[in-house]
Amino acid sequence: MQSDNEKGPARQQGLDKRQRILDAALAVFLTRGYVGTSTDQVAAAAAVSKQTIYKYFVDKEGLFAALIAGVGENVHNPFEELVNSMHTAPDADSAIGLLAEQFTRSIMTRQVQEIRRLVIAEASRFPELGRLYWQRGFAPVLGSLADCLRVLDGRGLLTVRDPSIAAQHLAGMLLWIPSNRAMFCLDDAEPDGDELAYFIGCGVGAFVAAYRGETMGADPAQRAGGD
Amino acid sequence: MQSDNEKGPARQQGLDKRQRILDAALAVFLTRGYVGTSTDQVAAAAAVSKQTIYKYFVDKEGLFAALIAGVGENVHNPFEELVNSMHTAPDADSAIGLLAEQFTRSIMTRQVQEIRRLVIAEASRFPELGRLYWQRGFAPVLGSLADCLRVLDGRGLLTVRDPSIAAQHLAGMLLWIPSNRAMFCLDDAEPDGDELAYFIGCGVGAFVAAYRGETMGADPAQRAGGD
Repeated sequence: MQSDNEKGPARQQGLDKRQRILDAALAVFLTRGYVGTSTDQVAAAAAVSKQTIYKYFVDKEGLFAALIAGVGENVHNPFEELVNSMHTAPDADSAIGLLAEQFTRSIMTRQVQEIRRLVIAEASRFPELGRLYWQRGFAPVLGSLADCLRVLDGRGLLTVRDPSIAAQHLAGMLLWIPSNRAMFCLDDAEPDGDELAYFIGCGVGAFVAAYRGETMGADPAQRAGGD
Repeated sequence: MQSDNEKGPARQQGLDKRQRILDAALAVFLTRGYVGTSTDQVAAAAAVSKQTIYKYFVDKEGLFAALIAGVGENVHNPFEELVNSMHTAPDADSAIGLLAEQFTRSIMTRQVQEIRRLVIAEASRFPELGRLYWQRGFAPVLGSLADCLRVLDGRGLLTVRDPSIAAQHLAGMLLWIPSNRAMFCLDDAEPDGDELAYFIGCGVGAFVAAYRGETMGADPAQRAGGD
């Protein structure tokens, strides 16, 4: 048993154990689905007692929530540094190139795509898991993309009237095919590197062309009415 | 029992019965999931005998496959007419506006999104269902978008080097947020009309700006290497 005021090595040991449980839980959830997984199975896979799991995560839902939060953080954390890079990038092409690389490659991993599929699969029965993924994963990452684009607008490298919409445009241009293919055709969950590089290159080119300047002058809300 | 050479009213009766079974099957699949659904339950919901279901669809997988094919056709069929409209639209804005409206509104229906979620949920256990959705739904619709864009390139209204990539760009710009939100947050499966109109307006504006002309001059493959 570890005390609540554990320090140094004891604390590190606790973090290691927590991570070991999360790794084991991911493997079990992916094999058996959310409903088919019990804390007993996770405890066995992580070689810890069921009490240890309860101590760290309260219950199965808490365990799954921690897993989702972890994915969100792994994808999201590199963006803090990226926002800084937006202040120093020499031009729009290299800034968006950097952003597109980081965003696409951090999301198109087998692990992220598998958790994504698992959450979508369970969202009918457990809507709180879907909302959690949205709040901890999807929305913050899109928000950070928008922050980056806001910086480029401020520097006059791009003209971005609605950064959230522009973030949707960049994300969708890069991921619509590979992300959907990963959901429907599991064999291709990880596209090959050359294909991703091509998607990234085309997405960067089209996005910069769309947002470079005066061509976005018309008010998009007006366009909507005129279709 | 109906004979194989049924004609006229008998044939129409057969088609009606087939559709009634499909409607009932969709409701049962959505409530109980693929694994939780039996042909007995579908037969009861459609008020037909189990033998009738076997006659039309062979088995549960055949029933689900027919459902997926039906969604694909419903979303896809309007595109034949749209390809023709691309030849007569007066300019790129109105052509892409037409395309974006049709595409977005035919996909962002509760029925399409619910079947989409069901297929993704089952793709781990039944990869052939995922592949079927890809082949009968996702890929043909994207292919028709590409056909439309090819026409606009041919008319010189847009500059589209790779119509498949451009189709990915248009689809992703329009649907990244609403489609993902429908997968994760079921309450919002159907975005309100005003929001969709805004997404469509912004997507059309940015897409036309990206593909209007000379700004796409650089070879995208070269850009990818330079990031």
